[in-house]
Amino acid sequence: MSKKSDKSAGWVSFDPNLKIVDCTVRDGGLINAHKFEEGFFRKVYDTCVAGGIDYMEVGYKADKKLFSGNDNGPWKFSSEEDIRREVGDNDTKLKLCAMADIGRTDYHNDILPCAESALDMIRVATYIHQLPAAFDIVKDAKDKGYEVALNLMAVSTVPDYELDNGLEVISGCDEVDYLYVVDSFGSLYYEQIDDLITRYKTTGKTLGIHAHNNQQLAYANTIHAAINGVKLLDTTMMGMGRGAGNCPTELLVGFLKNPKFNIRPILDFIQNAMYPLSQELDWGYSIPYMITGHHNEHPRSAIALRGSERKDDYLGFYDEIASP
Amino acid sequence: MSKKSDKSAGWVSFDPNLKIVDCTVRDGGLINAHKFEEGFFRKVYDTCVAGGIDYMEVGYKADKKLFSGNDNGPWKFSSEEDIRREVGDNDTKLKLCAMADIGRTDYHNDILPCAESALDMIRVATYIHQLPAAFDIVKDAKDKGYEVALNLMAVSTVPDYELDNGLEVISGCDEVDYLYVVDSFGSLYYEQIDDLITRYKTTGKTLGIHAHNNQQLAYANTIHAAINGVKLLDTTMMGMGRGAGNCPTELLVGFLKNPKFNIRPILDFIQNAMYPLSQELDWGYSIPYMITGHHNEHPRSAIALRGSERKDDYLGFYDEIASP
Repeated sequence: MSKKSDKSAGWVSFDPNLKIVDCTVRDGGLINAHKFEEGFFRKVYDTCVAGGIDYMEVGYKADKKLFSGNDNGPWKFSSEEDIRREVGDNDTKLKLCAMADIGRTDYHNDILPCAESALDMIRVATYIHQLPAAFDIVKDAKDKGYEVALNLMAVSTVPDYELDNGLEVISGCDEVDYLYVVDSFGSLYYEQIDDLITRYKTTGKTLGIHAHNNQQLAYANTIHAAINGVKLLDTTMMGMGRGAGNCPTELLVGFLKNPKFNIRPILDFIQNAMYPLSQELDWGYSIPYMITGHHNEHPRSAIALRGSERKDDYLGFYDEIASP
Repeated sequence: MSKKSDKSAGWVSFDPNLKIVDCTVRDGGLINAHKFEEGFFRKVYDTCVAGGIDYMEVGYKADKKLFSGNDNGPWKFSSEEDIRREVGDNDTKLKLCAMADIGRTDYHNDILPCAESALDMIRVATYIHQLPAAFDIVKDAKDKGYEVALNLMAVSTVPDYELDNGLEVISGCDEVDYLYVVDSFGSLYYEQIDDLITRYKTTGKTLGIHAHNNQQLAYANTIHAAINGVKLLDTTMMGMGRGAGNCPTELLVGFLKNPKFNIRPILDFIQNAMYPLSQELDWGYSIPYMITGHHNEHPRSAIALRGSERKDDYLGFYDEIASP
C-alpha cells in the first residue's frame, strides 16, 4: 500500500499515545450484576498486565446506601478494600480506573484521595443535562489527585445546539483531562463519529472513544477514531458488555502496532475464561440490537427481548420498534 | 450532525445508483456444498424481490465434467433449467447473476446467449495471474449480451507494481463493466480499502465491493466504500458465507436510505429460514478467523479448525499461524 495518511502513524509505525482501557469487569458486569466467579477479576487483571493494556476499569463506585450488596457483586461498588485484596499495591504499569454515575456515587466519602487509593483515574458518566452535577464529581476527583475522564452519554439523541453548548462548558472545566465520544446506542457510523470528533476537539481535551456493537461497528469506529486523533480506546475481552457489547480487546490489540501489546495472554484468557462465560451469558451482536441501533434507541427493549422466549422474533420486534 | 461530506449523498438523501448484490446462495453455498433444502433458493429469490434487492447471485457456473453432481448441490452448476424451474422468466425487477471461476467453467457451452438465459450478469472471479484467461470469459460473456463483472481476488497479497500493471490491463478491456474490490481474507481496514478504491478508479470502471467479516469489518468496509464511490455492494442474508462470512444484507438495507429497499421481508426470511440454518452450520466472526485476518492469510486453516474438536483452541491456533 503506498498511500499514507498524514493523520495516522502510517502502515508500520505506531503512536505511543494510543492507550487501551479494558472495561470487561465494569461494562461486562452489567450483564450479571457484577457477580463474577471468584478469581475472575484477578484473571482479567493479570491478563491486562501481561497483555500490555494501559488501563483496567475495575467497576462502578456505586453508593452502598442506594444499591443492595445482595443484588450486586463487589464491582458495582469497587471498594478500596476489594480492589486491594485483588491487586495489592498494583506494582505494575497497568493503571486502574472506576466509573462514577451522577446521583449514584457518594464521592465525598467513597472516593479516597488518590495517594491512598489503588485507583489512578475516575471516569464520570453523564448525560448532557447532568453536566453541572458531573463537574462536582470531576472537581472532587481532580482535587484528590486523580486523572479524570468525562463520558458524555447518549449524544446521538442530543440536538446540535445543545451539544455545542455542552462542549463549550466542558472546555471551560480545566479538571477534565479526557473527554469521551460515547456511542451509547451503537447507532453511529464513521461519518457521524468523525463529526463528533471534530466538535469534541474544539474543547482542547484529549479524546477517548467508547463504542457499542449494535451494527457490527464497535471495532471499526474505534480504529477510525484512533486514526483520527482519539487517544483512549475502550475495549472489553471478547466484546463482553451490555447488549451488543463493545470493541473486542483482542481485535484492537491485533490492529495496534505498539510492541508493548501482547495478544497471547489475551487469547489464553479468552479461551479459558471468556469463551466458557459466553456460553452462559448472552452478549454481542444480534439482530434485535441492530434494530435498536438503526432506530437510535436505547438497547433496553432488545435486552429484554433477548432474555425472553421471543429472543429470535426479529420481525415482531422490528414491528414494535418501527411503529410510530 | 452538521458536517456534510461532498462524496456522499448526505444524511437523509440517497444515491439511486447504489445496488445490492445478494450472494447468499453462491457464497453461503460454500459452507454446505450448495446442498440447500428444497425450497430455500425460492425463498431467497422471493425475499430479494420483496426486499428491493438489485441482483441475486444464483451460484457458480461450474463444469459438470470437472465436479460431481453427487458431491455438490445444483447451485454449484446453476444450469439454465434449474434456474428456470425456480424463477420462470423472472418477470421482476431483480436481476440474476452467476459466478464463473477460471479453469472451472465450460463457458463456451454452459453460458447461453443472454437473450436465451434467465441470467443478466456474469461475474468472473480471478487471481491476478489469471487475468488473460479471465478476459476470455469476460469477452465471451459480453459477446453473448451480459453485463460483466470482474472480481479480482486476494489482492491483499499482491505487490503494488503487479496490481497497478493488472489494473492497466483491466482498464484496456472494454468488456469489463464492473470491477470489484475483493477483501478475500477479511484482512483490510478502511484506509486500505480507500487505497484500493483510489487505484481501481483509475480504470474508469464502475466499482463493486465484496468484503469478508474476519475482523468484524465487512459491513464497515462496505459502507465506507459506498460513501466513497463504489456502487455494487455484495451482501448475504445474516452474513452467511464461507468462514467469517460477509456483509449482512439486513445491516446494509437498514443503512441505505433508498425507499425501494424493504427490511421487513428480509427479517421475516432470516427469522424463519436463516436463523434455523445458523444453528446447523458454522459461519460468522470468531477468533480463529480474526487470527487469519490479522495475518492476511486465506481462512482455510481457520475453517478446518472450526470443523474440528479444537474449534475454540484460540491460543494453539494462534501459535501455529504466528510461528515463522
